[in-house]
Amino acid sequence: MAEEATVAANEAVEEAALATPYLKTLMRLLRAHDSFGAWERKSDVELLADYVLTREERRRIPIVGDPDPDTLMRMEQFYAAVGLCVESETGLVATPMMTMHPEGFGRVVLIAGRLVVLSRHVRDVHRYGYDSLATLAAEGTKFVAAAVALINSHPEVARA
Amino acid sequence: MAEEATVAANEAVEEAALATPYLKTLMRLLRAHDSFGAWERKSDVELLADYVLTREERRRIPIVGDPDPDTLMRMEQFYAAVGLCVESETGLVATPMMTMHPEGFGRVVLIAGRLVVLSRHVRDVHRYGYDSLATLAAEGTKFVAAAVALINSHPEVARA
Repeated sequence: MAEEATVAANEAVEEAALATPYLKTLMRLLRAHDSFGAWERKSDVELLADYVLTREERRRIPIVGDPDPDTLMRMEQFYAAVGLCVESETGLVATPMMTMHPEGFGRVVLIAGRLVVLSRHVRDVHRYGYDSLATLAAEGTKFVAAAVALINSHPEVARA
Repeated sequence: MAEEATVAANEAVEEAALATPYLKTLMRLLRAHDSFGAWERKSDVELLADYVLTREERRRIPIVGDPDPDTLMRMEQFYAAVGLCVESETGLVATPMMTMHPEGFGRVVLIAGRLVVLSRHVRDVHRYGYDSLATLAAEGTKFVAAAVALINSHPEVARA
């Protein structure tokens, strides 16, 4: 009985995550890149499944050698979706720039006008992923909120 | 006689360019990367010679295929030197970020704190070069001045 309740609770959390503007945007972005319709029959959850890695799964990915291009692509889309959400909230385009060392560390920024609205140093990109859809949604939403707050405190720089 | 005067005038202009803080910084940077001492016996002018391309020379470089890695490196050093000059004038580190499409166009930014102190879209990178050392010095110096001015108008963003 307790187990059933947990499953139901998890499903509710997942539903809530999928309904966030951030995950909706990320999903739209992923589908927009699906030029060949390969993911057409995939549900939203299936589409986002690659973002979710358990601690164990992460640990099993070696961090030697180049990161998987699909992983890099997923990370780029993550930040691009943050940019799109920032745009829909503020009307200002926030462009991502990513520089990545082939060994899997690098820097990601989102730029609006002359303002760096997000700046992150990333490492062990090979293992990029989130514990759950809820974490993914929360992280994305957090970055959007921080970027929007920054734009609101320096609107003249963001509009420059 | 007129020709001699022109040569002398050109030399004076070149001397003046080499004495600018910008070109001195660029030179220091190039020498700092000379780990194997390959350029030890090269004079400053010889070292900077690769930055100078006449209109004709530029036109002869094909813009199909990947840009020469040396050319890309030179461009990176150009902007990194702008960053170093900004730092020596303001005390704030200005970090370069460059994203380049393999076909030779891309974007370069210099970031100090949360401020984008320089932002340039570049193209036909294959043909990157300047008409003369004087032009090279003038361009670098111009970018430094613009970046410093921007920092001075938004010090709180640059220090964020």
